Amino acid sequence: TINADRLWSTIIETARFGGTDKGGVRRLTLSEEDRQVRDWFRAACEAAGCTVTVDGLGNMFALRPGKDMTKPPLGIGSHLDTQPTGGKFDGVLGVMAALEVVRTLNDAGIETDAPLCICNWTNEEGSRFAPAMMGSAGYVADLPVADILARTDAEGVSVGTALDAIGYRGPEEVGAQKLSGFLELHIEQGPILEAEGLPIGVVEHGQGIIWYDGRITGFESHTGSTPMHLRKDALATLSEIVLAIEALAKAHGPNAVGSVGEAVIARPSRNVIPGEIAFSGEFRTPDAGILDALDKALQDKVKEIAARRKVDVRLDTIWRKEPTHFDPVMTGAIAAAADRLGLPHRPIVSGAGHDSFHLATLVPTAMIFVPCKDGVSHNELESAKPDDCAAGTNVLLHAVLAVAGG
Amino acid sequence: TINADRLWSTIIETARFGGTDKGGVRRLTLSEEDRQVRDWFRAACEAAGCTVTVDGLGNMFALRPGKDMTKPPLGIGSHLDTQPTGGKFDGVLGVMAALEVVRTLNDAGIETDAPLCICNWTNEEGSRFAPAMMGSAGYVADLPVADILARTDAEGVSVGTALDAIGYRGPEEVGAQKLSGFLELHIEQGPILEAEGLPIGVVEHGQGIIWYDGRITGFESHTGSTPMHLRKDALATLSEIVLAIEALAKAHGPNAVGSVGEAVIARPSRNVIPGEIAFSGEFRTPDAGILDALDKALQDKVKEIAARRKVDVRLDTIWRKEPTHFDPVMTGAIAAAADRLGLPHRPIVSGAGHDSFHLATLVPTAMIFVPCKDGVSHNELESAKPDDCAAGTNVLLHAVLAVAGG
Ligand SMILES: NC(=O)NCCC(=O)O
Ligand SMILES: NC(=O)NCCC(=O)O
Repeated sequence: TINADRLWSTIIETARFGGTDKGGVRRLTLSEEDRQVRDWFRAACEAAGCTVTVDGLGNMFALRPGKDMTKPPLGIGSHLDTQPTGGKFDGVLGVMAALEVVRTLNDAGIETDAPLCICNWTNEEGSRFAPAMMGSAGYVADLPVADILARTDAEGVSVGTALDAIGYRGPEEVGAQKLSGFLELHIEQGPILEAEGLPIGVVEHGQGIIWYDGRITGFESHTGSTPMHLRKDALATLSEIVLAIEALAKAHGPNAVGSVGEAVIARPSRNVIPGEIAFSGEFRTPDAGILDALDKALQDKVKEIAARRKVDVRLDTIWRKEPTHFDPVMTGAIAAAADRLGLPHRPIVSGAGHDSFHLATLVPTAMIFVPCKDGVSHNELESAKPDDCAAGTNVLLHAVLAVAGG
Repeated sequence: TINADRLWSTIIETARFGGTDKGGVRRLTLSEEDRQVRDWFRAACEAAGCTVTVDGLGNMFALRPGKDMTKPPLGIGSHLDTQPTGGKFDGVLGVMAALEVVRTLNDAGIETDAPLCICNWTNEEGSRFAPAMMGSAGYVADLPVADILARTDAEGVSVGTALDAIGYRGPEEVGAQKLSGFLELHIEQGPILEAEGLPIGVVEHGQGIIWYDGRITGFESHTGSTPMHLRKDALATLSEIVLAIEALAKAHGPNAVGSVGEAVIARPSRNVIPGEIAFSGEFRTPDAGILDALDKALQDKVKEIAARRKVDVRLDTIWRKEPTHFDPVMTGAIAAAADRLGLPHRPIVSGAGHDSFHLATLVPTAMIFVPCKDGVSHNELESAKPDDCAAGTNVLLHAVLAVAGG
């Protein structure tokens, strides 16, 4: 079994890179804080006997040799970037657990059959640059590398420029580091495992995701002297869209969610009717048919709202990720490892997106979930218990040994 | 009659201070652009034989002597600040018309009985600092001067600091410059005069105004993994409030309006449920009873929404201005002047707020409206015809002669 104290202190140690006074982490992808944690990660992997390479999207690969170097390595890991007001565990746990697995194997003098490769994927969060899971999208060729490099943040900085700014546009060709499979440990980010008192979730499916960018163009005019029936109010229009997304998600069963995360009024003034608003939106559901239905219903609803309010609404689908179905051999290895360790588990659907969703399109992949407090994530209050982190890492260790061959 | 060409070229000349490429003006109160237009105004008034003084709130007074200097002067004017995306006429027309009246009297060698005083009131717009009509509020002691000086903009800069920064915190005590009455020419900022083909509106009433500052505190969490029923979504909450304000205004007759002009999500991210939003809101109606009813209904509705959504909503009333009723002698003088000039007119209610609302609480006051294109204001496309501006200024001239004594 792994060294639980070392795992925990490693998580706490790296939380200082971008650490906030509320106990959270603000480590936007390709920021200075991201550079710091990447430098730390490279040094820690090298100290654990790994060779670290970086590809053209900043994805980091730390290779631990195996007995049979003709076999492609088994990938383990997650991501080290966070939300603007993120927690200490989302992504970080998966990378630190992978490092802890390698350290434990080193301590025990175990060489696996296939090599292992700890992965730190660039921009999993999708907050600074859309879409999410960007580095792994490039790796599996879900998006062209050139397209990814040209994506810009709110300040107009491109991914390519940001990679250069922190010195993490690596020489390795994207996708060149072959993997035989991928295993990722992550906090659940939802309330199910905690509510059921279970330490382990075996992730069998991942939700499909659709992301929108929207722009409403109404007409700026005086709040005092413009009669209600002559207004083209962009904020009232947005309000209807926000509530429509909420209502549509609720109407499509317990497994659909829908949200608007960002909305910015251009040139706001308290006595000017908002004339222009940019916003983001999304739906998620494990069922591709329901994702289609939600998308269609929203597009229709938006057309109706725009026509009735005589405003212009653009709603662009900027990303669509089909629902993910993980590999039964890999989920079986995870369930067997949990059984061997006497840890109760259940199958679970991932509400959040993960790099494993992309890896699953290329190689046998699966994920392990551990509970987090109140199911809260993407919040500085995000919290997970040391025991649960250790349990998940032990399951990872045993699944790795089963898959890579002890 | 006044010199229409000179009036028009003066309006166009000053529109360069803060002029935008869409033909509008961005001249926020106490900004560098405001300093430029104030310097211009001071020089132009001095060239027209006036003595210019500035009070402790930056209100500017250009005194033109009369035959009887024991009489307090008749005030004429408006404001030179604009919205972030304002037009060339809102406020500006009233100040330039007052200057044109003085220039015309100079050309004709007419000395009025009572002196005249051209006024440029500080921060009529209320966009950078709330509330609106701030300089005139201080002048009539509707708000204490110290309170006004301490108000801050979105960057935390106080009115006092901003006055000092542009050198317009004057030595004169606020309110010391006595006036015997006040007349203000303004574009209607609404669609009525244009629709009815009338060049002149005699403003008899002004709407009551209530301004709110609100803050919604929900809970940031993951858009993908947080089930719909466990969310505390600040943006969905705001959306209900925006639509409630709109619906309440519509339900209270053709003469009530309600809007949300500003809304800012704290720390937005597209896959984080908005946890905190600051917003502004307002209602306006000429009827004080309806203003009470709207306020009460909104407060009740907000409580209901907050309880149902389990979020915290603060709604603070930051300003309440009772409906204004202008002086019948002054409105009579305006109507008589229009009749004398053969200009058709109608009584009208002001949808927008004006410094005259404050002056009316102290001295006999009234306003003249002229049409503007499509009723549009608080927009860079705001537009008024040279003929209409000239007609309004002629009415101002003749009303001034009647009230101040030719
Ligand atoms: N795991 C995780 O929080 N991913 C961020 C991308 C998303 O699901 O929106
Ligand atoms: N006249 C005018 O636009 N005033 C601005 C203050 C307000 O009415 O909100």
